[in-house]
Amino acid sequence: MTTRPKTPLLDTVNTPEDLRQLGKDQLRQLSDELRAEMIDAVGQTGGHLGSGLGVVELTTAIHYVFNTPEDKLVWDVGHQCYPHKILTGRRDRIRTLRQGGGLSGFTKRAESEYDPFGAAHSSTSISAALGFAMANKMQGKPGRGIAVIGDGAMSAGMAYEAMNNAEQAGNRLVVILNDNDMSIAPPVGGLSAYLARMVSSSEYLGLRTMASKIAKKLGRRVWGGLEKAEEYARGMATGGTLFEELGFYYVGPIDGHNLEHLIPVLENIRDSEQGPVLIHVVTQKGKGYAPAENSADKYHGVAKFDVVTGEQKKSKGGPPAYQNVFGETLAKLANTDPRICAITAAMPSGTGVDKFAKAHPDKSFDVGIAEQHGVTFAAGLAAQGMRPFAAIYSTFLQRAYDQVVHDVAIQNLPVRFAIDRAGLVGADGCTHAGSFDVTYLATLPNFVVMAAADEAELAHMTYTAAEYDEGPIAFRYPRGAGTGVAIPEELEKLEIGKGRIVREGSKVAILSLGARLEEAKKAADLLEAKGLSTTVADMRFAKPLDTALIEKLMRSHDVVVTVEEGAVGGLGAHILTFASDEGLTDSGLKVRTMRLPDIFQDHDDPAKQYDEAGLNAPHIVDTVLNALRHNSAGVEEARA
Amino acid sequence: MTTRPKTPLLDTVNTPEDLRQLGKDQLRQLSDELRAEMIDAVGQTGGHLGSGLGVVELTTAIHYVFNTPEDKLVWDVGHQCYPHKILTGRRDRIRTLRQGGGLSGFTKRAESEYDPFGAAHSSTSISAALGFAMANKMQGKPGRGIAVIGDGAMSAGMAYEAMNNAEQAGNRLVVILNDNDMSIAPPVGGLSAYLARMVSSSEYLGLRTMASKIAKKLGRRVWGGLEKAEEYARGMATGGTLFEELGFYYVGPIDGHNLEHLIPVLENIRDSEQGPVLIHVVTQKGKGYAPAENSADKYHGVAKFDVVTGEQKKSKGGPPAYQNVFGETLAKLANTDPRICAITAAMPSGTGVDKFAKAHPDKSFDVGIAEQHGVTFAAGLAAQGMRPFAAIYSTFLQRAYDQVVHDVAIQNLPVRFAIDRAGLVGADGCTHAGSFDVTYLATLPNFVVMAAADEAELAHMTYTAAEYDEGPIAFRYPRGAGTGVAIPEELEKLEIGKGRIVREGSKVAILSLGARLEEAKKAADLLEAKGLSTTVADMRFAKPLDTALIEKLMRSHDVVVTVEEGAVGGLGAHILTFASDEGLTDSGLKVRTMRLPDIFQDHDDPAKQYDEAGLNAPHIVDTVLNALRHNSAGVEEARA
Repeated sequence: MTTRPKTPLLDTVNTPEDLRQLGKDQLRQLSDELRAEMIDAVGQTGGHLGSGLGVVELTTAIHYVFNTPEDKLVWDVGHQCYPHKILTGRRDRIRTLRQGGGLSGFTKRAESEYDPFGAAHSSTSISAALGFAMANKMQGKPGRGIAVIGDGAMSAGMAYEAMNNAEQAGNRLVVILNDNDMSIAPPVGGLSAYLARMVSSSEYLGLRTMASKIAKKLGRRVWGGLEKAEEYARGMATGGTLFEELGFYYVGPIDGHNLEHLIPVLENIRDSEQGPVLIHVVTQKGKGYAPAENSADKYHGVAKFDVVTGEQKKSKGGPPAYQNVFGETLAKLANTDPRICAITAAMPSGTGVDKFAKAHPDKSFDVGIAEQHGVTFAAGLAAQGMRPFAAIYSTFLQRAYDQVVHDVAIQNLPVRFAIDRAGLVGADGCTHAGSFDVTYLATLPNFVVMAAADEAELAHMTYTAAEYDEGPIAFRYPRGAGTGVAIPEELEKLEIGKGRIVREGSKVAILSLGARLEEAKKAADLLEAKGLSTTVADMRFAKPLDTALIEKLMRSHDVVVTVEEGAVGGLGAHILTFASDEGLTDSGLKVRTMRLPDIFQDHDDPAKQYDEAGLNAPHIVDTVLNALRHNSAGVEEARA
Repeated sequence: MTTRPKTPLLDTVNTPEDLRQLGKDQLRQLSDELRAEMIDAVGQTGGHLGSGLGVVELTTAIHYVFNTPEDKLVWDVGHQCYPHKILTGRRDRIRTLRQGGGLSGFTKRAESEYDPFGAAHSSTSISAALGFAMANKMQGKPGRGIAVIGDGAMSAGMAYEAMNNAEQAGNRLVVILNDNDMSIAPPVGGLSAYLARMVSSSEYLGLRTMASKIAKKLGRRVWGGLEKAEEYARGMATGGTLFEELGFYYVGPIDGHNLEHLIPVLENIRDSEQGPVLIHVVTQKGKGYAPAENSADKYHGVAKFDVVTGEQKKSKGGPPAYQNVFGETLAKLANTDPRICAITAAMPSGTGVDKFAKAHPDKSFDVGIAEQHGVTFAAGLAAQGMRPFAAIYSTFLQRAYDQVVHDVAIQNLPVRFAIDRAGLVGADGCTHAGSFDVTYLATLPNFVVMAAADEAELAHMTYTAAEYDEGPIAFRYPRGAGTGVAIPEELEKLEIGKGRIVREGSKVAILSLGARLEEAKKAADLLEAKGLSTTVADMRFAKPLDTALIEKLMRSHDVVVTVEEGAVGGLGAHILTFASDEGLTDSGLKVRTMRLPDIFQDHDDPAKQYDEAGLNAPHIVDTVLNALRHNSAGVEEARA
């Protein structure tokens, strides 16, 4: 809450309509103010900084040249959208980014008509923009689809599928490739920009149309030859052949921070009849903020920080993050087990695979944003005797669901799935929550599905998975820091399909899966204080179920409550299905299931999210008490 | 069972070991005999014919040149593997293809060591082959990964992801692009084959290595330039630039039926240090069998047929297939609703979208084997006011699960999912069964999930989905012919989340979802005959549940049985979760759930599959009787 940056020009711009009233010579100043405003805001909120800084000029140029919101602008992944939010009527709330009740850290349809398509997972933008373009074409409405997609996002097959289908949209589709990986980017500068401007000019495109018409008369074969010769000639100069092969007009590379290059190119594209066009823009992540430019990760995601020094608020020490417990455990196991290897899909540090890779670089594979390939690649490794760990966030594993079913489960191949970010994830919100994995995995034959109650359990499960060669096995664990328990030197190989009783009681049984175990134990304390003797079991396995334990607890308790951090269809559903089919509930046992609610929860503090979900100790207590009260006058009459 | 073709040479070949004892000059005859044997076998069994005929020479050449099974040969999709099966020890069972207990119509690990990786869904082969290659590399074992992938399969993003990751495998990875779409294939013949042989020769690759070494010393930038110049020069001659961009050595195109071209090229590749290599082979689907060559679909999938005339056994008339009811209904609705459009992922006839496309070509989109793109494209269309129907088989929709979650469900966009092949599918087996869709969709917030009990219901649901703009809606229906009910002229807009009672009773309630309704009604007849008054409800909706109906039936019946053609986590799990949380089961109601078993069922006659699954009328009766007997001496004491 220190002095805000002075932004006299930006203060006059509330929407792109206002922006388009400015002269081109004012856009440099506007961009500078926009950058300063963004840095100041993220300093207060934390969030994604580097990506947004890299697209300040691009954001300005797109809204200046194109007719948003009629032209539908889709930001891929969406974490680079903060400047866009500032320019599209949300500046007054920009300092609420990622806070409970505040702006999302991604694009979101509910927030603004300038966010026609929400994003957070990578590589969806071209498909969505194509949808907008074709819908407008079919309805005879004006308006393009404009996708802005990073070079990293281009590693996903989905982007390729979309490009492969783009030709039909003609000039209604514009793809802007935001290339910010300087290590692989081609040289940029005056010459390239000149070539790009020339290539994108109406005259050039016009010439091309004529050639195309002539060629069509001559037949495809000949035209193919002419076209190719031209393509390759241009490809050699500008590097765009791959995109040309897929049917795009390739333009670039262009310096994405130079408005004098950007604006005329975009204007040429806008006014041309030709398309679809791919504009290759080269930007610098973290641009214009020295601490970001100088940092290795370009301040991709930051905590709150001091704008002057760039110093980020340190997180307090505390227990290690689950991901690191996983990565370090796996690295240690691999010291004596040469078959262990690890796969990450562009998330080496997020999954802890970086720790593994440091110790075992030859056994570590970062496949890029390519979960589909990653999982089937792992299946191939497993089929040839390796012990692969596919470390993928719960929400991203959805990208590879068919590969999990078809290549892993049906073939019963021992791929190990280390599923991070299982459950609620706080500020990243519903797009990153890991709500469905237990449901979508435990329904599959052959699968073993575990959930870790704490970081020691995670270490045991990592070891258990390494040693399990009979088929696919998954273990899930939450985002963030562990509970602080010690991690034993000697890891335990868990018996498959066996839970553990962590507290013995006689009236109420709480069957917990995963890290809500702490709350289950707290709830047991509260229930004991009310005179209700409570058992707490850590089920460990959603599949196979510990049916002996379930039967024993159901036969010896009045109320059974299941607790899990996942959507309907998981542990509770599996226990109910087993119990009803076995007739365990025939005689009037009270069973209640607690799980994530049937809504997509907005981003917020994790504690508040758990409250909203109703998965804290007091909710468990309430559920038990309500069950006991049900159909009777009070606790004593619970089991009629 | 007429005269088998004479195959004196093939009779001496039981495995590739035997094949490799032959002289090159014998391979033409062997291929001819192999083709004749395959035609004769498929004439008896039906199955995929055209694809296998196209790769007879390729199959022969690969096994002749490479060291299978140490070299791991992965056939993409797998439906072209019949010649491969004949050459790899399975000739004696080739006339059991796709029959119960017989050979699978796809590759299958359990069948043979020559099938290192099963397939049936498209585009997995490069990832798997790369897994084999890298596993061998890490373990210091010999053996390549060889993927044979069709040009159609290349439209899937997964293949692109795999190619993008292939470089690390070096010469341990060989990708053979089997290009059998003559309309887009480049010219083939002597000159091209000559060029290809030259390009693939050791001398040429050796030269290239040297250039590479020099260039590395000069640094990446300069090398990039040299490399590109060479690539483009070759690309202009042979058309392989796209693959070169992804890091492959491109070789081709080669005539895939000319063994004198194929063998030396494969030998060159085998003996070279360079890789990964992509060999572009051009083949003709249906090659060598006149009726197939002359048919529009090249006999892609056939019924049993007469080998001499090519005439296929006609299916008896009977009720229309579900897919056609869907396609025709949608076409009719679109006559008056310009917002309706349809998306198929390379399955126009299988989904009935061909019927729609015929009437509304501008509203129909075949995106290729690209379910991920297809779903998000549909989301974009929906966001811009269209009413898109994504018509995708249950098992293939798994390919787009994240797009269903992230782009459709979270944004609550009204994409309509027409889910064909829901449930068991007979001869195609477990890879094509639609077992999991209710589970993986009904767990998602915002989703409406319906299942059609017959083809009239399907028509109503198609109309209901068209009119439903509030969010995503899915309706599933089985493979094959309907039940023969009339389809009303006037379609009904079903009330969302409401089931219907199709038979009133008082003691037993059967809650059915989908097309097992017929069996539920038969079971009710059988139960009535035993004096058990039985209600049958068609729930219609797995989500939202008809909670009022469920509560009413549970409060008024002694036994409630749910029946569905899906895996655990579907209707039964949702009903149990609702009922237990509401306390409906507290007082001793007997609930049983019937569903697909927790195994991947092998291919067989549908009737036998239902028997194995335990989802026929007698199984329902048994379940009811067992429930009534449970915990008591007999029927009369059922509700204690």
